[in-house]
Amino acid sequence: MAGSTLGTIFKISTWGESHGKALGVVIDGCPAGLELSEADIQPYLNRRKPGQSAYTTPRKEADEIEILSGVFEGKTTGTPISMILYNKSQQSKDYSEIASYYRPGHADYTFDAKYGFRDYRGGGRSSGRETAARVAAGAVAVKILKSLGVDVTAYTRSIGDIQISDFVKKEIMNNMLYMPDREAAVKAGKLIEAVSKEHDSIGGSIECIINGVPAGIGEPVFDKLDANLAKALMSIGAVKGVEIGDGISVAKKRGSENNDFFCLDDNNNIAKCTNHSGGILGGISDGSDIIIRASFKATPSILKEQQTVNKNGEEINVSIKGRHDPVIIPRAVVVVEAMTAVTLLDLMLINMSSTMDNIKSFYN
Amino acid sequence: MAGSTLGTIFKISTWGESHGKALGVVIDGCPAGLELSEADIQPYLNRRKPGQSAYTTPRKEADEIEILSGVFEGKTTGTPISMILYNKSQQSKDYSEIASYYRPGHADYTFDAKYGFRDYRGGGRSSGRETAARVAAGAVAVKILKSLGVDVTAYTRSIGDIQISDFVKKEIMNNMLYMPDREAAVKAGKLIEAVSKEHDSIGGSIECIINGVPAGIGEPVFDKLDANLAKALMSIGAVKGVEIGDGISVAKKRGSENNDFFCLDDNNNIAKCTNHSGGILGGISDGSDIIIRASFKATPSILKEQQTVNKNGEEINVSIKGRHDPVIIPRAVVVVEAMTAVTLLDLMLINMSSTMDNIKSFYN
Amino acid sequence: MAGSTLGTIFKISTWGESHGKALGVVIDGCPAGLELSEADIQPYLNRRKPGQSAYTTPRKEADEIEILSGVFEGKTTGTPISMILYNKSQQSKDYSEIASYYRPGHADYTFDAKYGFRDYRGGGRSSGRETAARVAAGAVAVKILKSLGVDVTAYTRSIGDIQISDFVKKEIMNNMLYMPDREAAVKAGKLIEAVSKEHDSIGGSIECIINGVPAGIGEPVFDKLDANLAKALMSIGAVKGVEIGDGISVAKKRGSENNDFFCLDDNNNIAKCTNHSGGILGGISDGSDIIIRASFKATPSILKEQQTVNKNGEEINVSIKGRHDPVIIPRAVVVVEAMTAVTLLDLMLINMSSTMDNIKSFYN
Amino acid sequence: MAGSTLGTIFKISTWGESHGKALGVVIDGCPAGLELSEADIQPYLNRRKPGQSAYTTPRKEADEIEILSGVFEGKTTGTPISMILYNKSQQSKDYSEIASYYRPGHADYTFDAKYGFRDYRGGGRSSGRETAARVAAGAVAVKILKSLGVDVTAYTRSIGDIQISDFVKKEIMNNMLYMPDREAAVKAGKLIEAVSKEHDSIGGSIECIINGVPAGIGEPVFDKLDANLAKALMSIGAVKGVEIGDGISVAKKRGSENNDFFCLDDNNNIAKCTNHSGGILGGISDGSDIIIRASFKATPSILKEQQTVNKNGEEINVSIKGRHDPVIIPRAVVVVEAMTAVTLLDLMLINMSSTMDNIKSFYN
Repeated sequence: MAGSTLGTIFKISTWGESHGKALGVVIDGCPAGLELSEADIQPYLNRRKPGQSAYTTPRKEADEIEILSGVFEGKTTGTPISMILYNKSQQSKDYSEIASYYRPGHADYTFDAKYGFRDYRGGGRSSGRETAARVAAGAVAVKILKSLGVDVTAYTRSIGDIQISDFVKKEIMNNMLYMPDREAAVKAGKLIEAVSKEHDSIGGSIECIINGVPAGIGEPVFDKLDANLAKALMSIGAVKGVEIGDGISVAKKRGSENNDFFCLDDNNNIAKCTNHSGGILGGISDGSDIIIRASFKATPSILKEQQTVNKNGEEINVSIKGRHDPVIIPRAVVVVEAMTAVTLLDLMLINMSSTMDNIKSFYN
Repeated sequence: MAGSTLGTIFKISTWGESHGKALGVVIDGCPAGLELSEADIQPYLNRRKPGQSAYTTPRKEADEIEILSGVFEGKTTGTPISMILYNKSQQSKDYSEIASYYRPGHADYTFDAKYGFRDYRGGGRSSGRETAARVAAGAVAVKILKSLGVDVTAYTRSIGDIQISDFVKKEIMNNMLYMPDREAAVKAGKLIEAVSKEHDSIGGSIECIINGVPAGIGEPVFDKLDANLAKALMSIGAVKGVEIGDGISVAKKRGSENNDFFCLDDNNNIAKCTNHSGGILGGISDGSDIIIRASFKATPSILKEQQTVNKNGEEINVSIKGRHDPVIIPRAVVVVEAMTAVTLLDLMLINMSSTMDNIKSFYN
Repeated sequence: MAGSTLGTIFKISTWGESHGKALGVVIDGCPAGLELSEADIQPYLNRRKPGQSAYTTPRKEADEIEILSGVFEGKTTGTPISMILYNKSQQSKDYSEIASYYRPGHADYTFDAKYGFRDYRGGGRSSGRETAARVAAGAVAVKILKSLGVDVTAYTRSIGDIQISDFVKKEIMNNMLYMPDREAAVKAGKLIEAVSKEHDSIGGSIECIINGVPAGIGEPVFDKLDANLAKALMSIGAVKGVEIGDGISVAKKRGSENNDFFCLDDNNNIAKCTNHSGGILGGISDGSDIIIRASFKATPSILKEQQTVNKNGEEINVSIKGRHDPVIIPRAVVVVEAMTAVTLLDLMLINMSSTMDNIKSFYN
Repeated sequence: MAGSTLGTIFKISTWGESHGKALGVVIDGCPAGLELSEADIQPYLNRRKPGQSAYTTPRKEADEIEILSGVFEGKTTGTPISMILYNKSQQSKDYSEIASYYRPGHADYTFDAKYGFRDYRGGGRSSGRETAARVAAGAVAVKILKSLGVDVTAYTRSIGDIQISDFVKKEIMNNMLYMPDREAAVKAGKLIEAVSKEHDSIGGSIECIINGVPAGIGEPVFDKLDANLAKALMSIGAVKGVEIGDGISVAKKRGSENNDFFCLDDNNNIAKCTNHSGGILGGISDGSDIIIRASFKATPSILKEQQTVNKNGEEINVSIKGRHDPVIIPRAVVVVEAMTAVTLLDLMLINMSSTMDNIKSFYN
């Protein structure tokens, strides 16, 4: 089926395999009149690019985005924006070994089970490389949201058992791990080094804060803002848990602890005294910061020996060679930001026709 | 927008407010030839009904389901199945107080922000009562899944800090809290009593295990099985966290710990030695049990005094009267089961056209 | 699959069989704040109701619409509007004969082929009675459109070879055939009588003019306004042809005849000198009247003897008894109006987010 | 909004402007295991390419299709198939004149009205060139359908008032006008020459016959086979009328004339004695040939002088220069074939889960 398309009004379709000719995304439903060029998008892709730091794979991916349609004289035209990334240097490798067995923790087995065979080169469609296309779409969504006063900020919350204990926003872009806590970043860096030496990998978590969303975004009962965000984040390959606001810790709390009381702010407007809800009540934004968190498993490709089964039906031990990230988190931060942005923007566009007053003031 | 519709092939649309004339669901896309009557559905609704135990509200809701269409001579016809629950005894109450302020932890404020006003009677559309319609649809999905050898079992995993430490499946239906651990159920019962006496409420978590799903279900990259399940569960009002398999604990684990190695089972078929992945790899079922977990916040309606703001823009203290559940978990177990079933079934139907071989053997 | 749902923002799902307990429609995505009651909808259903004139079946259908949800204190709440029509007096009849063969021109055979069996009572889901649910949804759309200055007017253009040669709008509601030409109506009435006497039926065509649509409605390239209207009208059971503007006659015309030149109107605004295009250019409304036309086949149920095949695989001759309309046109006029209105409204709501300027002025 | 995406299971998204860098299509949901290469697709594009005959524009479009993803080792993988056509030689032209006024019969005005401005180079997104992407997707659908025994054949039925009076299938590919009647083709050729000399253009009609569709395809009540086909054809720029079977002529016929009686074929299987219905009853295929027809307006770009309005709000006379087709029909034949194929295939895939028997035999 059609599982590579997401969204209703701002609709994205990604395509492409890790080692095919190219990969890309089509945005169908981007509003007309947005100033847009490759320069708006490339910085986001650079954040996802490997080889940026000691903590990511030294693999080189050019990842130079090219806009093929939907932009004219520097502005979006309202028609589909097609963006492409060519896969330049990935032809020659020998994949015969990887084709002969199922890598633990990867989708090799399930793709075979579903489709009868698979593009085994670098994970094919199930490769994390597919998220580059999401990031390109996300960059467009982020730019639109900014013009509406909405800021989306993702950052690394934890790597292994090293968790941030401080939040200094400007620090996020100052360390290779995108942590808003310099001290935690140093510790996490050491942890990653230690894990790498043991030919292993490590998991982590990413948080995303969205500031400036007006109250009223989200469509009950199934297209709740948090429901759509949960889908968007869980659709990122390595994510195994998604939380809103206080997340799974609410399961242990009492109503009197967890409810956010309403109060008046300095301008006598209604506000919440706390934000346990993470900015969403009943699936609709409540005007507070939206807070969402995703937990990522460790990179499944490790040099450390693992057991699996090969094509001949034999149990074998394998060691996954190649330049793999010991931790996926730093490169995934911008992916979380992208998925959050496209999901939120879609619901903000949908919300425009929620009342007769809105429609009448638009058309009359 | 159209936020009350879920699914692609097996599509459900719920409608109705807590205190309106009725509520219901339309299932569009139920396959023809399923034996179906109200007797298949009512037991599921009874599990959600209030007043079943000391731990739930003594409020009475008749909740007698009626099938209005799509079934002929005892079998589904392939056309939409419309099911209705009349709201019988909820006319007379005085809602003027509740209409005058925003209840903390509820969607009163966000509905007003979005739509300009709200049906304030018992929470209107944002009431948990809406989930009765989901349960009716879920009962149909569960019945179809059973005929395909797929079993969906949800149960209470924790209430407050009381968590199950044993799993005895037949115990689930033997205690009012739907816990597969009798001892934990007794402890949890006492906790609920204590919380009730303090005019407070408590959260908890629900787990769902799906047995018998063949490998290959789920559509990369956005309609992954886990992504769609995450949306389905997060769309339940009180859910703030959703996890697959080892869930958020993967963030602290190494690749070598978290990867499930492949091995051969007794019939020399490929299998996973462990199931950290919760039965899903790359968004596609891997043939192991699917395990999904949702964390619920405590019932926001509590008798304990809370601060809020009223219509006149004044900060006031309120005490939410009425017969409210001190814990939402026991009644939500069947809702989790329902949402899991409709989501899985939809992806199983979608999967039928995934290969040319499938299509050719169907049509030739 | 899910074939009973139409629309993206203003989404309707109809359900119900001709002789089941009830039929109805759920509107998901109706904007909040519209004043709405059964009195807004009933007049539209009355226009579709049988027994209104000598030219329609004397069968009685109460068709009293009831709103079950989505309206509170006289206004729509933004949540799904569920509307129901109970099928009151259709239990007792004997359908054993009709169940035993396939009626020519009906969907009996194709439903069996698709679903394995069918609800044969009065045509089940394929009955024209299903369109009552569409009319109820259409009445809501028409009311919203009116508040935006958009008028939808359908009328009978021809019955058999009697075609209108005049257009007097107020005449439409003055004759039982909804023709804007009194003389043609008289002739058509006589034709219908003659056809009836021969135990036969007759086809016809319905035209719909939409006035007041601003330029800019419709989404290239597949959700063009005319493409979505064509689907909406062709989805009405008996329709076999759909035309926009000059319709199929354009096939014989030259570019210089068919192009509408642009000129300046009295206010020096750009306008079209003619309207061959029927108000749509490139799938987008051009500000002129939108003109759409549907051709209907004759009622397939006729008393006149026809050949068919029965359950035992024998060729037999049948005469379809019962109170059937000799012409479907008069009752279908309001159905065309309804389908046009729901389709146009959906695209008008979608259009609200077409430009950055629109979005910014909404959110900033 | 998202108007460039069509289909549910076999979903296509086209992108690109006439004179941008490239245009293309993403097919999301193509079943895995189909042998596919550019050689399967190029012949279809060649049929649409200009410069093929004296009757089409001598403009050169390379139109060499390239598959960028979704195919591995010669077979489709089940993941999105991205196909691209680069626009090679269209950079240098001066479009300042065309940008300064609205061409009659074109979408220049409506794009401006909707989006605030437009890509005026060669019609931008509204150019017929967009249909090349549809043709590429259609070629894939046609190949799948063939493997299921379904043949889709489109041909020119009329040009101006020259209509075919014979149907010799093999003749279709033997004349430049794709007419199944050699004599009519000769006459039509002369008509086109005459029209060209007068600096004018001419309309026509295209018919498509689909052979081999089993009974049972199509989803009542809105996703009827004929309803979806009507949308698909009406979404082609120049189409102003769509007909099924006897089409608009049914409006003048009696039930006894128009109903297809059922009879037994030579194998004693049920069949229709005639095919007025065009192979569809109640929106579901009935096993007979499906017959659908589209009426196209004349190419709006003509050298003959026309009146319009320019940017300065002045009425002016214009003569549209450039190499334009005097008739659009020959190049549109393959577009009709493509749109018919993608629409039918999508509904055939959807149909696979229509009964419990189908699902059980697939999964058990």
